[in-house]
Formats: sequence, structure tokens, C-alpha cells
Amino acid sequence: MLTLALDPSLAETGVALVDQQTERVVTTLAIKTNPAYPEQDRLQVLQESLARLIKKLKPVDLAIELPFVGVNPDTALKLGGVRGMILTLANLHHLRVHEYTTFEVKQAVSGNRTADKEQVRQMVKRLTGIYVANNNISDAVAVGLCHLRHQRFEQALATAEKQ
Amino acid sequence: MLTLALDPSLAETGVALVDQQTERVVTTLAIKTNPAYPEQDRLQVLQESLARLIKKLKPVDLAIELPFVGVNPDTALKLGGVRGMILTLANLHHLRVHEYTTFEVKQAVSGNRTADKEQVRQMVKRLTGIYVANNNISDAVAVGLCHLRHQRFEQALATAEKQ
Repeated sequence: MLTLALDPSLAETGVALVDQQTERVVTTLAIKTNPAYPEQDRLQVLQESLARLIKKLKPVDLAIELPFVGVNPDTALKLGGVRGMILTLANLHHLRVHEYTTFEVKQAVSGNRTADKEQVRQMVKRLTGIYVANNNISDAVAVGLCHLRHQRFEQALATAEKQ
Repeated sequence: MLTLALDPSLAETGVALVDQQTERVVTTLAIKTNPAYPEQDRLQVLQESLARLIKKLKPVDLAIELPFVGVNPDTALKLGGVRGMILTLANLHHLRVHEYTTFEVKQAVSGNRTADKEQVRQMVKRLTGIYVANNNISDAVAVGLCHLRHQRFEQALATAEKQ
């Protein structure tokens, strides 16, 4: 069973597919959009690339980083647009959605809620053997790893409750 | 040819279908979502209702009010989510998207960029013969009327350029 892990952003969305059984990263990519084009066209590029990926690799779970909205409402509106597109795709393709805050992701991979990009990248390398130069891809892999940890924890809890 | 006009919001999205030839309002409705449910489920309710409507009535244009984001990034993120879902549906169903600011909508129906809700409602009544008690539906009708005016203007311009 595959998890599609995303670090969403209009300019470049980081994508990682992780296998829940083997805990391996199956593939990663970054989907870039051209800032010269209108927002709707850029959303469409992201949407169509993700839809193709979902149809081809058939993930069952979608893990995304909850955007940290900061203080700028215009940025929040754009990020919200990307998130709304992703949630719509998840509904259409019947993916279970799991959202994690930036803090949860950093905590899960590095044990440090406030780790910087380079620390996340180093921990991703240690955990997966892959050094990812691209920040958005590295973040997407971290989201995927965070999701695997949460899944393991949930399963352990379920097993413990049965006993 | 029908235009699907929307006043988007997570709590209640106002919907109006207007006919571009007759300039009549074909139907209106409000899609409400339950605030007790998670955002993703509420988005799904809006998405599925709109998708059904699009499949049934086959509009060619989508006119939406650009959300006025205000100063709250969390609100902007939620509004962005609804907008992203709508733009995704528009892409999937090949609708042409036209976005209008609140000011443009108010200007188009009342001649006053800062008209209040009641003034918009009264002008909607004068233009369509319909008194709409619901604010979101009234706004959606106003978006539809704004779109018709813009279309007429574009056509007049195109005709003038040909002569």
C-alpha cells in the first residue's frame, strides 16, 4: 500500500510515494508551475500531474503538510487553493487524507519540532539513504515518514487495546 | 448557454444559474455544510453538490466572486480551499472561469462599488424580478448578472473592432 506524501505549494509541490509495508521511498518528484501563468492554469498543471500519478500508482493514503499560513492573507488564499485542489482530488480518487503540521513532521523525522531544512534533509538521508537536494521533495519525504510513524503508532495502540 | 455563478464559502455557497441568451435566472440554491464536520468533509459536500449540478445542467461558464480575504490568514486558507475545489471542478468539467471582485460585482448590479447586502438584493430584485432573502444566493445572482454585463461589453467591443 502506497502513501502519496505532499508538500503543497503553487510554485513547486514536492511529491513522495512511500510504501507502508517496506517503509521505502518508491519515487519522488517536484511539480513546478510557471509563475508567468495565471493561478488557475498553475493549479491545473499541479492537478493533472497529481491525477496522472494517482491513476498510475494507486496510492491509498494521502499525507499532506498543513500549510503554515503565516500572516499574509494573500499567501494563505493561494496555499488554500492548492490544498482545496488536493482535497478535491483525494475525494475523487477515494484517498484517505491525513494532515500533519510542520511541527509534527519535524518532530517525527528529527525529534526536534523546530529543525531547519538542512536538519530535515540530513534526517531524511539517515532514514532512507537518500540525500534530496530539493527542499520541497525533502519535505514531502519527511511528510511520508511522519505518516508511517503515525500509522505504526496507531497500529501498536490498536494491538495493545486488543490484548 | 448557461453560466454557473457562485458566491463561495465553506459554511454556505450561494449558487445561481443564469442563461446568457435570455438573461434570466434559471435556478438558485444554497449549499450548506455542517460546521460540526471536518473541513474536508464539508468541502466534499460542496464539491459533490456542484459536480451533480454541472453534470445535470451543463453550464459553459463559471463566474465566481474572488474572495475578499480580509486580514485573517486562517479564514483566507479556508476560503482558498473552497476556491481551489471550485477551480479544480472547473478544470475537470472544462468550464471557462471568470473571476470578479466584490467591488466589480457591486458596481455591475448597483452602480455603487460599496453597496451593502440589502442594496444588492434590491437591485437583484429590480433586474430579475426575484427577491432573494438569502444573502449568499443574492450575491451569487449578482455575480451572474455581473458576468452577463461583462460578456455583453466584450461582445460590443468585439463588434466595434470589426467595423
